[in-house]
Amino acid sequence: MDEPSPWKKLSEKVVYQNRWIKVREDQVVTPSGSDGIYSVIESNDSVVVIAMNDNNEIYIIKNFRYPHNAWMWILPGGGGDQQHALEASKRELEEETGIVAKQWHKLGTISVCDGLMTEKQTVYLARKLAYKQKHKDADEPIADSKFVSLEALDRMIATGEFVDGQAISALYLLKLRLAKAV
Amino acid sequence: MDEPSPWKKLSEKVVYQNRWIKVREDQVVTPSGSDGIYSVIESNDSVVVIAMNDNNEIYIIKNFRYPHNAWMWILPGGGGDQQHALEASKRELEEETGIVAKQWHKLGTISVCDGLMTEKQTVYLARKLAYKQKHKDADEPIADSKFVSLEALDRMIATGEFVDGQAISALYLLKLRLAKAV
Repeated sequence: MDEPSPWKKLSEKVVYQNRWIKVREDQVVTPSGSDGIYSVIESNDSVVVIAMNDNNEIYIIKNFRYPHNAWMWILPGGGGDQQHALEASKRELEEETGIVAKQWHKLGTISVCDGLMTEKQTVYLARKLAYKQKHKDADEPIADSKFVSLEALDRMIATGEFVDGQAISALYLLKLRLAKAV
Repeated sequence: MDEPSPWKKLSEKVVYQNRWIKVREDQVVTPSGSDGIYSVIESNDSVVVIAMNDNNEIYIIKNFRYPHNAWMWILPGGGGDQQHALEASKRELEEETGIVAKQWHKLGTISVCDGLMTEKQTVYLARKLAYKQKHKDADEPIADSKFVSLEALDRMIATGEFVDGQAISALYLLKLRLAKAV
């Protein structure tokens, strides 16, 4: 059994909220016994999709990441609660890339930034791909997209060309799965 | 050259701020041309430290993650801007674990949650470890800590016992480094 929480919550209030996130500020007694606050970002859970074709290449997209004011290579994905992660994965993949997949393998669930946020991302591997019409969401423009081998993707990560942490942690699960054959 | 931003920022305001984060709400014109908002969490950059002993085992700690109300296995780390990432890494490692290291290798910088947050984490590999007095920060209690082999850690990740995304993405960089020898 784990020890109980070393934090004591005295009260909580929502200090900001929009469609995607809620920011909660809790009045707490810290583990050392002093009064303080702990603020938590309550964000929706998310999904990350590794779409791998029959040549074992992975589909990556270059998306504009507003918080960084930059185009960044990422994997398809987006919002989706834990219960409906598979449906969300199918929807996000098709909307963002036009790809539909016959096989879906759940690779695991990872906490994104657990010192600050509640968000967990569920990772799916999509295989046996087919291609439909591309990109329906005009508010998520994609500057570039391509299939790359895992080796090429590793080079992009090693050189800092691909820096998206949610994708990189997802790819870790992929490699664990590949090591024992999908 | 990358295309320019498909978002147009009309104005911004800080809607919440504490010692650790600032929440900014921007009025924007979205890529599809409609009016909207985009909220950004401006959090401090962070560091993640992979402390590896001469047996190639990695030090993991079980820390209480308040947003998840749970004890979770993580790697040592914490706040630290990009410029002083090495100093922050040394400080966090010693404060949280009592470990000091003679060799430090920068493995890379990763965006933590780039659709929502500005935070980037810099990852260091610490080698040639020595042990001093343990754990000075009473507000970051550690329930357990241990050295584990990378194989054992992979099993913890595969089974969902170790789910911290910031650590898992850091370990990805470690494996890339190990593949060409540190």
